[in-house]
Amino acid sequence: MDSRYAIGLDYGTNSVRALVVDVADGREVGSAIWTYAHGHQGVVLDKDPNVARQHPADYLKGAELTIVEALAAAADTVPGFAPSQVAGIGVDTTGSTPMPVDANGIPLALQKRWAENPAAMAWLWKDHTGWAEAAEITKRAAEMRPQYLAKIGGVYSSEWFYSKILHCLHTAPDVFDAAHSWIELADFVPAAMTGTLHPDTFIAGICAAGHKAMYCKEWGGYPDAEFLAKLDPKLASLRDRLTPRVKAVDSAVGGLSPEWSQKTGLKAGIPVAVGAFDCHLGAIGAGVAPGVLVKIIGTSTCDITVKVNSDKLADVPGVCGIVDGSVLPGYFGLEAGQSAVGDIFNWFVEYVKPAGLGHVELTEQAAKLKPGESGLVALDWNNGNRTILVDQRLTGLLLGQTLYTTPAEIYRALVEATAFGALTIINRFEEYGVAIDTVVNCGGIAEKNAFVMQLYADVTGRPMKVSRSAQTPALGSAIAAAVVAKAHPDFATAIKAMTGLKEKVYQPDPAAHAVYKDLYAIYRTLHDAFGTETGRGNLASIMKQLIDIRSKARS
Amino acid sequence: MDSRYAIGLDYGTNSVRALVVDVADGREVGSAIWTYAHGHQGVVLDKDPNVARQHPADYLKGAELTIVEALAAAADTVPGFAPSQVAGIGVDTTGSTPMPVDANGIPLALQKRWAENPAAMAWLWKDHTGWAEAAEITKRAAEMRPQYLAKIGGVYSSEWFYSKILHCLHTAPDVFDAAHSWIELADFVPAAMTGTLHPDTFIAGICAAGHKAMYCKEWGGYPDAEFLAKLDPKLASLRDRLTPRVKAVDSAVGGLSPEWSQKTGLKAGIPVAVGAFDCHLGAIGAGVAPGVLVKIIGTSTCDITVKVNSDKLADVPGVCGIVDGSVLPGYFGLEAGQSAVGDIFNWFVEYVKPAGLGHVELTEQAAKLKPGESGLVALDWNNGNRTILVDQRLTGLLLGQTLYTTPAEIYRALVEATAFGALTIINRFEEYGVAIDTVVNCGGIAEKNAFVMQLYADVTGRPMKVSRSAQTPALGSAIAAAVVAKAHPDFATAIKAMTGLKEKVYQPDPAAHAVYKDLYAIYRTLHDAFGTETGRGNLASIMKQLIDIRSKARS
Repeated sequence: MDSRYAIGLDYGTNSVRALVVDVADGREVGSAIWTYAHGHQGVVLDKDPNVARQHPADYLKGAELTIVEALAAAADTVPGFAPSQVAGIGVDTTGSTPMPVDANGIPLALQKRWAENPAAMAWLWKDHTGWAEAAEITKRAAEMRPQYLAKIGGVYSSEWFYSKILHCLHTAPDVFDAAHSWIELADFVPAAMTGTLHPDTFIAGICAAGHKAMYCKEWGGYPDAEFLAKLDPKLASLRDRLTPRVKAVDSAVGGLSPEWSQKTGLKAGIPVAVGAFDCHLGAIGAGVAPGVLVKIIGTSTCDITVKVNSDKLADVPGVCGIVDGSVLPGYFGLEAGQSAVGDIFNWFVEYVKPAGLGHVELTEQAAKLKPGESGLVALDWNNGNRTILVDQRLTGLLLGQTLYTTPAEIYRALVEATAFGALTIINRFEEYGVAIDTVVNCGGIAEKNAFVMQLYADVTGRPMKVSRSAQTPALGSAIAAAVVAKAHPDFATAIKAMTGLKEKVYQPDPAAHAVYKDLYAIYRTLHDAFGTETGRGNLASIMKQLIDIRSKARS
Repeated sequence: MDSRYAIGLDYGTNSVRALVVDVADGREVGSAIWTYAHGHQGVVLDKDPNVARQHPADYLKGAELTIVEALAAAADTVPGFAPSQVAGIGVDTTGSTPMPVDANGIPLALQKRWAENPAAMAWLWKDHTGWAEAAEITKRAAEMRPQYLAKIGGVYSSEWFYSKILHCLHTAPDVFDAAHSWIELADFVPAAMTGTLHPDTFIAGICAAGHKAMYCKEWGGYPDAEFLAKLDPKLASLRDRLTPRVKAVDSAVGGLSPEWSQKTGLKAGIPVAVGAFDCHLGAIGAGVAPGVLVKIIGTSTCDITVKVNSDKLADVPGVCGIVDGSVLPGYFGLEAGQSAVGDIFNWFVEYVKPAGLGHVELTEQAAKLKPGESGLVALDWNNGNRTILVDQRLTGLLLGQTLYTTPAEIYRALVEATAFGALTIINRFEEYGVAIDTVVNCGGIAEKNAFVMQLYADVTGRPMKVSRSAQTPALGSAIAAAVVAKAHPDFATAIKAMTGLKEKVYQPDPAAHAVYKDLYAIYRTLHDAFGTETGRGNLASIMKQLIDIRSKARS
């Protein structure tokens, strides 16, 4: 056939990637990556560590640059490849990453007047400035609309849509008033590429709307005006200017515009799929199915699974969202996650800079240590806790240091802390009837770091599998592109054809797992003591337990 | 007068110092220092981080080398100076640093057969191998002899005499059986220099015996045989081989032996004072008196005050020891301390090696931060907690890290943690009727680090004064030498003549103190939660409180 390729565009925290994929077998034939130009590694920061913004101009420039370069790479790889063989485009992004737009749907930051104003830029997922607003939304919802909270794990996060918008309203009212509406990055890119940014044509994805904007058919779409008015009357009136057209990734928002055809060399009119979050399309790229938990491990993690939407499903406390169709049409999408994983390791290497050691040397040294021999335990909360506590106002903790504690010991404790966090999520799913039979990992750490994967297997006591693709979000986006371009009849067929696992499976070591059972009990005691009002473990014994475990490990 | 000088010998953790002092005004005219030859910086280590030993040969070699060099330095400084003008010698050391000796009082490690055996060496104060034995001694004493515990703060420490001896008995019985008796470093050096090591002539100091070996006239000296037999019958029989002659620092153990006269060039027969711990003689060198707390700040701290022994004095829980005459004759000596202060800063610089920064750069950067702005709080327990918890099986804790936490912020949090520990000790004294009107600091950190001293003033809300002498333990030893040589009629006269304060006094800043009041409340909550069975603070709010303090500090 002539149209045998699909493009996935993947917008990460620091960079955007374009991936050209063969729809027949998922082969990745061309790829390109570009780091956003604004701020520090693509993120506009402030002395307030809660601030994290991005410039929308980077999103457009990044799409153009990476598509052109990925197509050139495909032409180098595949004899006879032509951009005209690309049948469709899919887009995944970070989120909730909302931005204010004008009456034509154009982001304010693309206009000269607002170009340098951080409040007018995109509010990156990890922007936590809206923590007080998040608490207010949670409180109001608990009083007025408990059903809203039930679907999002019981707590509305500072990382989400309305927290950010309300914080803008409180702290940058000029920007709020200048905005006609707010849109998600996941919806901005497909609309920009298809010329459908205008409110009359704009389409939003169910993924962002359902997981971050409390959109649900059960209560008629977005949260009702009465509720929003209690937060601020201006928020209630904004509701009417949020798009009523909300669709899943098996729909296209439109065809590629002539302008974007010219920019990229792709055929005008090829369908661009509804956008979704990187982890949701990443789960598709890793072969998500009922019983399969896909962990996308990067700076943070998203943990995704699905459950047939005809099944009964209890609300799962602390799980960020349960949205019908947010991952795959016909299934509940369940999203959990850790607010920082790679970011914690990066903090240690880039901010603490211990003994000038990089990740490679620290990993080598840490891998030589036995479980428990450092006497350390850490909490993985340097960026808050997304699941199961849904609380961004939590911070890191390291316990057990002596006068001889080494950087490698601390590094290993940080890796272990993220593994304990991962186990806490798996346990929570299973406690509420969502069985996890298989864990598939993807992302850079899963790809490259055998030490981390083995440690995750040892801590969880479960085999760790790794997705065949190194670029599951982009691959998942390409799968959505293949579906909307009708290269496959449905997602199940497309996933079967286009995804796979690596041969290497990390099996848990029983002896290590036994030690980690004890360490996890200590982690959980600290987790509950610092993270919940009801944690009542005996902390007076914690340090001594660790010393006992240390002595045993060293003997 | 012809005999106008005194020598103080100060045995620290890593090195020994000799100081030649003018008895008229305390002027320090010559000084020399030598780092012990064995092990890492004078400490013999092991893969078990609890092990810390020293070789007795280093003690003798160090005395000879430093006295000779200090006398040469004095001759360079003072025209007409002659070693024959030295009237006496005083000795202070670390402790409890006991060592096994043979029937002639010679340390086993000075004999070829035992020279390389760490169990036959001196068990340095910070050796914590006897933690289980310490717990056993505490338990037995609580059952049988609560009066023993009342005087030592309620808990017998792994750093002390019998914990180490009992651990030797359990783990190196050949060494225990080969030993006729055990003596403290503080008593070994004066005895060696005066030829009184033999059990028939050996004299022990009340300072070590009272604070570490539970020696008290009230119950007839050392703990009774019935009690010791419950720990081990061999320990009970050892009791008869501990010296019955226990004296304070206003006595001499004897006159300098001809052998040592020849080694050093000093006059034979000049008195050598009874030895005491560095912090006790350091307190004398800093001008200790009722109401004056002397803080000797080094790798660890000793906090010393005195109270007239005709006063009523309740037992002070967690204060390491209350011993009549241990510091000054006629006064109760009260000793508290922190198990690590400089050692914690050294750990961060030398083990974590953050960004290649040394103490100077970290101090510079940390000094620019405002109280509370890091959002961090730490516990100063990397080496356990001596006062007020008396528990070596506690470890470090750092809480509040984000993805942006810097080395300087951590360094400042560690300094603050030691200040909170210092405040906890002052508060404990005052809660039990020991008023503290003045705090005099000494030691390298007090001398050189204005940032630390100002921070201590801000945290405690009290002025921090600094001793005039940089070598208060050695000066205190020289004062004891002056007293036993009858250059002054008593300690009060000698202290008045020979000690003083620096002009610079660090005054607390009220705004900083207000922030530190809040941070100290958080420290205390963590302290009690991890350090006591009864700590019941609400930890769930801790991280949020720190974030609130941080926001306020940054705004």
